[in-house]
Amino acid sequence: MISPQVLPDKKVTFRYLARSAKEVKLGGSQFGAANVPMIKDSMGIWSVTVGPIRPDIYPYSFIVDGVTVMDPANEDYFPNERFKASLVDVTGFTPTVHAMQDVPHGSVNYEYYPSVQGTTGSLVIYTPPGYDKEASKKYPVFYLISGTTDTEETWFKVGRTNLILDNLIAEGKAKPMIIVMPYGNIEARIAAQKGGAKPADPMGRESADAMRRMRGFEEDMIKNIIPYVDKNYRTIANKDNRAIGGFSRGGGQTLRTAFWNMDKFSWICCYSAYLPPAEMDSAFKSVVENPDATNKQLKMLWVSIGNEDFLYNDTAAFLNYLASKKINYKSLVTGGGHTWMNTKVFLAETAQLLFK
Amino acid sequence: MISPQVLPDKKVTFRYLARSAKEVKLGGSQFGAANVPMIKDSMGIWSVTVGPIRPDIYPYSFIVDGVTVMDPANEDYFPNERFKASLVDVTGFTPTVHAMQDVPHGSVNYEYYPSVQGTTGSLVIYTPPGYDKEASKKYPVFYLISGTTDTEETWFKVGRTNLILDNLIAEGKAKPMIIVMPYGNIEARIAAQKGGAKPADPMGRESADAMRRMRGFEEDMIKNIIPYVDKNYRTIANKDNRAIGGFSRGGGQTLRTAFWNMDKFSWICCYSAYLPPAEMDSAFKSVVENPDATNKQLKMLWVSIGNEDFLYNDTAAFLNYLASKKINYKSLVTGGGHTWMNTKVFLAETAQLLFK
Repeated sequence: MISPQVLPDKKVTFRYLARSAKEVKLGGSQFGAANVPMIKDSMGIWSVTVGPIRPDIYPYSFIVDGVTVMDPANEDYFPNERFKASLVDVTGFTPTVHAMQDVPHGSVNYEYYPSVQGTTGSLVIYTPPGYDKEASKKYPVFYLISGTTDTEETWFKVGRTNLILDNLIAEGKAKPMIIVMPYGNIEARIAAQKGGAKPADPMGRESADAMRRMRGFEEDMIKNIIPYVDKNYRTIANKDNRAIGGFSRGGGQTLRTAFWNMDKFSWICCYSAYLPPAEMDSAFKSVVENPDATNKQLKMLWVSIGNEDFLYNDTAAFLNYLASKKINYKSLVTGGGHTWMNTKVFLAETAQLLFK
Repeated sequence: MISPQVLPDKKVTFRYLARSAKEVKLGGSQFGAANVPMIKDSMGIWSVTVGPIRPDIYPYSFIVDGVTVMDPANEDYFPNERFKASLVDVTGFTPTVHAMQDVPHGSVNYEYYPSVQGTTGSLVIYTPPGYDKEASKKYPVFYLISGTTDTEETWFKVGRTNLILDNLIAEGKAKPMIIVMPYGNIEARIAAQKGGAKPADPMGRESADAMRRMRGFEEDMIKNIIPYVDKNYRTIANKDNRAIGGFSRGGGQTLRTAFWNMDKFSWICCYSAYLPPAEMDSAFKSVVENPDATNKQLKMLWVSIGNEDFLYNDTAAFLNYLASKKINYKSLVTGGGHTWMNTKVFLAETAQLLFK
């Protein structure tokens, strides 16, 4: 039994074996209709064919008598703290920028580092093709943060960071760089390692609790992660060769960490996130009141969002605010929502601009 | 909501939120009774406390109205081609050999390599602490293969290869080594990359189909994997510094690959697997008919198995056969069955013997 099966016309058939189930639906609306009913055959295999689907990688699940499950026949999964989803890769008629292609490949390293409060943190680190071959060559570094409920693996397993960079580097479109993917929810890690309960998400993106956690992440980044990476990898350890970026909560962590530390990052990539003008006015006064200095300090401030993203309006307000303050930025508005399909587009676009 | 919650006395509470489910059971019998009923509270949270459980890492799942699901509250999963299981880590009163401890850590690298039929294979590679620090130091290599339906991630995520080695190396009990974890089911990868159906498992461990696949794996190991690793890592590229080992189907791949290539590996670690005496007689005549030469060629032939393993009788027969042929071996019989709890024990035992 194959599931999912991507057909030549980019329709996709999903199958699930459950002889005694009463109702099975295809969950995951990100490629079309939500909760599509599946039909059982005489062998007890439920199936449905949907599409044609626009080539991309999508999460999905099955809803079996009301219970959401991953596809047992598919080992590609979405690393996440909370939901369980499988991934379907609808390959392009010609290879997409995130496709495995016959080009030199970098490597992806799982590393531990000494983090806050005596805990051990983990990082997923992409090194570009040839990194191990040229023992004296040094590289710029892009710190790339995932979103709420994502893990440090999500940019690799869902965002395909490594393949996107492999392909862009092979085409000469991106500079070879190291990409460091941390875990954004360090409170959960502290709880796990110290035996406490995993804390709930903050009530509100700009609540006091959220801001306290933002500071905790920033502290870990500045005091632990960057020094660890600069010590253990061949980095060009200066501001102009250091970028920070992130998706969703990671975008908020990106903006705040960068604005709190204007001496640390020259490149900022904010994907599907924003800061409220009121916070900009109060917390980042020196950034907004001296646009000439800010524009000189930053080689790029990038903000991108899908026009169906639930954060679209706030992000548009943020961009208009930046313009009103004469702070330079680059922006991109795509179709689609607050999804990992969009993060791949944003990464592919910004990777071509960084460190140039 | 915390799930699973390991209590101080090593009992474990599992929780699952499902307001409208009619029946929820704890699946996964590897730490005790199978299919333990869970009880719903007024909030719709089903729970059960079991144990005390012997400290180890165990797979488990929930059975919700007959549907097997992973624990949505737990991000630790068992990488597998077919079943979906979460992992519970019942930590020891003192740290186990696979526990995260405050010792120098190696790193785990995900790599692509050019494999058979133009496909791209993936490897998970452990490098010991300090590997990146001593640019001229070379290391022995242990090729370590997982079992049927496992992926190249299973030895890392379930077997904790990296933490076991970090701990043993820190204690001076194991030599620093590189460990290369390939994917054992290359037919599935070929199908995935060439667009075919994933082949079913062979009918029978010693069927013609199984043997053809064993040869395919061996070819990939000898022609592609070892040359890739020797080219891209600082290996001591000779027989006495090369070990091969594996669990279950990986144990069969280990024995056959080693016996087909007596010039390539001096160290053989077979976990929960065996070869039939009839196959030894016919396929490996030169190995069994010249025990003195074999004993000289091999620095270690290790075979270990749990006394409740469904392969126990065949493995006992294999060991008695080796003894009758005067081929030296080391063996270990533990309690327990054909499980990843046992693989960790076997790895920890053999890692202390290799390359000494």
